[in-house]
Amino acid sequence: MTDILGRLATIVASRADAAAGESHTAALLQKGRGKIAQKVGEEAVETVIAAVAEDRAALIGESADLLYHLSVLWFDAGLTPGDIDAELARREGMSGIEEKRSRED
Amino acid sequence: MTDILGRLATIVASRADAAAGESHTAALLQKGRGKIAQKVGEEAVETVIAAVAEDRAALIGESADLLYHLSVLWFDAGLTPGDIDAELARREGMSGIEEKRSRED
Amino acid sequence: MTDILGRLATIVASRADAAAGESHTAALLQKGRGKIAQKVGEEAVETVIAAVAEDRAALIGESADLLYHLSVLWFDAGLTPGDIDAELARREGMSGIEEKRSRED
Amino acid sequence: MTDILGRLATIVASRADAAAGESHTAALLQKGRGKIAQKVGEEAVETVIAAVAEDRAALIGESADLLYHLSVLWFDAGLTPGDIDAELARREGMSGIEEKRSRED
Repeated sequence: MTDILGRLATIVASRADAAAGESHTAALLQKGRGKIAQKVGEEAVETVIAAVAEDRAALIGESADLLYHLSVLWFDAGLTPGDIDAELARREGMSGIEEKRSRED
Repeated sequence: MTDILGRLATIVASRADAAAGESHTAALLQKGRGKIAQKVGEEAVETVIAAVAEDRAALIGESADLLYHLSVLWFDAGLTPGDIDAELARREGMSGIEEKRSRED
Repeated sequence: MTDILGRLATIVASRADAAAGESHTAALLQKGRGKIAQKVGEEAVETVIAAVAEDRAALIGESADLLYHLSVLWFDAGLTPGDIDAELARREGMSGIEEKRSRED
Repeated sequence: MTDILGRLATIVASRADAAAGESHTAALLQKGRGKIAQKVGEEAVETVIAAVAEDRAALIGESADLLYHLSVLWFDAGLTPGDIDAELARREGMSGIEEKRSRED
């Protein structure tokens, strides 16, 4: 499996300096934190609706939109997927060794 | 970077059959689609608020919560991170070769 | 104070049968439940953001948008403000007499 | 029809100074803007889910919850239903006379 969030972070960073007219990502970043957060909220609402409507294709599409805009929000806030990963690892109490073992189970 | 979503999918699957009293994930899965979607929506709201309030620690924590509950929603819907990955790849029109090249840029 | 929700219900009903091209309300109703619910969710997200950003004018505007789209949702579901009123009254345990008394306090 | 939002505003104001242990409203107001906005967002998510699931009773209940928490948010922000009413009236371009006429149509 590829590292989806790492790849999205790379894509967002590569588009951040494009002209707003040429990149949805660049345009959104220029609108600022509030508008980026709004997009995350909107895509989450659409993900929720697709899930409850049991629309598989829509759930995939809206989930992809949600992850993309969440990646834009992280970029804007100076966060990387590694910051989220560290938090999840902290919660799980998973050291590298435990994580390795869990994959071998 | 580790594959966060792949690891979350593994964790969710490993907990799905636990007793509801022993696992938040198992309890949530037993409540069904509506309640799982509700949690995704709630965590998205908290992510949005942390982002607008410029609370970095909260944004990390709520993003982690959001990804976890999104992973539970995917599991409940029979989706894997690979399904989302394929959709993102389709949108980007990225073949494996192009993806490799973009990393070398 | 005027009865805002009653007035909104009247406005929505009066526009429901307009041509979609002439009325945002009619167009939205023709798109169906999912799209109407999506608008309610989106306006709620914008209300939340305005509130956290302490933007008074935006909070007023987004609250108005939220109430309008909630009124469209109720109309689509065959609900009236009276149905919500009855639920609120039930929760408060307010009979007509108690309600009258509370206004005289 | 009673004026739902006006009544909710009165109820919220009457509870605002209660001890947090005795009133959900007072407790919520003491938690501050972020937590109040979060509740509005959560109730909106539940309203959206009830609407898409076509659960009439839940839609009524969640709508009531949404209006209540929206009223708490307005109180916290120093807004009254009249502020929202004025915005809606401005949009509609409805003077008192036009409003009266629209009811006679």
